[in-house]
Amino acid sequence: MDKIITIAREYGSGGIEFAALLSKRLGIPYHDRAVIADIAARTSFSEEYVQRVVERKPQPVLPLLATGHGPAIVDGYASMPAASVYQAQREAVLKLADLGSCIIVGRCADYILRDRSPLRLFLYADLESRVRRCLAATPADAPGRSEREIRQTIQRMDRERAKYYNFYTGEIWGDPHRYDLCLNTSGADLAPLVAAAAALLA
Amino acid sequence: MDKIITIAREYGSGGIEFAALLSKRLGIPYHDRAVIADIAARTSFSEEYVQRVVERKPQPVLPLLATGHGPAIVDGYASMPAASVYQAQREAVLKLADLGSCIIVGRCADYILRDRSPLRLFLYADLESRVRRCLAATPADAPGRSEREIRQTIQRMDRERAKYYNFYTGEIWGDPHRYDLCLNTSGADLAPLVAAAAALLA
Repeated sequence: MDKIITIAREYGSGGIEFAALLSKRLGIPYHDRAVIADIAARTSFSEEYVQRVVERKPQPVLPLLATGHGPAIVDGYASMPAASVYQAQREAVLKLADLGSCIIVGRCADYILRDRSPLRLFLYADLESRVRRCLAATPADAPGRSEREIRQTIQRMDRERAKYYNFYTGEIWGDPHRYDLCLNTSGADLAPLVAAAAALLA
Repeated sequence: MDKIITIAREYGSGGIEFAALLSKRLGIPYHDRAVIADIAARTSFSEEYVQRVVERKPQPVLPLLATGHGPAIVDGYASMPAASVYQAQREAVLKLADLGSCIIVGRCADYILRDRSPLRLFLYADLESRVRRCLAATPADAPGRSEREIRQTIQRMDRERAKYYNFYTGEIWGDPHRYDLCLNTSGADLAPLVAAAAALLA
């Protein structure tokens, strides 16, 4: 039977890194915001196109409004009503889950896929360790890289994620009852947490 | 190195059952409310006495105000100021942790033992599965056993646990950030959750 795992996460809690490790351990693909935005940006995406994106193969046609990065494509939606963007991304999430076992990061996937009983994970960490993680992941000369700015970004992003989730699902983002397992990534080592999540799928 | 595991839990989420399974898996003792109340009820508890309680050996002397059940002993404290009861239980928790690896259920143990870096677990579940669990654990002819009454008990106990924890620790009970791992016990099978918690100690 297919295993669908959804990951919601506080900003800077290592969601993508965790997804990559879990993906490797379970031998199933993971799809992050960029992949989903990329698929959703096509007004008429074909099975074949989705498959190529999932397999991270070169795409025969550039994504609409492509800039090479997912988040920029999302920005490209600016002229679309937000609800249409959500609908397109929702369809992309459903399509990805149709293809078989996978891990989906963000995008309200735990809610969108609720009829398929996914394993729903929530990742969180204390603010200090999230600041450290963000600092480590940002080039030293990047704009907005001061500790104060990163702290502000984390708080703003969490507020936005909560608002987005609450708006489209009517549920409370980060409420443990929405998830099967909530993992504190404040420690540096994600491997034991990946093992804990994998234990629920054994 | 000693492994100290603390378990906070919503009422009816299977905390004791989970502690017993984890105890068996790890080969270390677990101490619940009854054990801690029993130790704390002695105004001058000796190392030897604590050891006997921990090993669940017959006690040479009956606990003070003994009725055979932990919670009743706690009620026996009624004439003591609540803060003294908390202090006595706090000392009992510290003493139990001194004896070596163990699992401690409830009693603000995650806060009391914070300097020893315990693995802090929080167990929770949806209301319906908690009602089912309580119904299954209560004799059919017990007073207060109707579904409505059990539902009310669950809600009252959670409110009391939150109030108690918040009062003595200044922190928010059930806030994921207070714990390393939050486990949803709504499914019937606790074994995979026990395995997940054990994975963090490997």
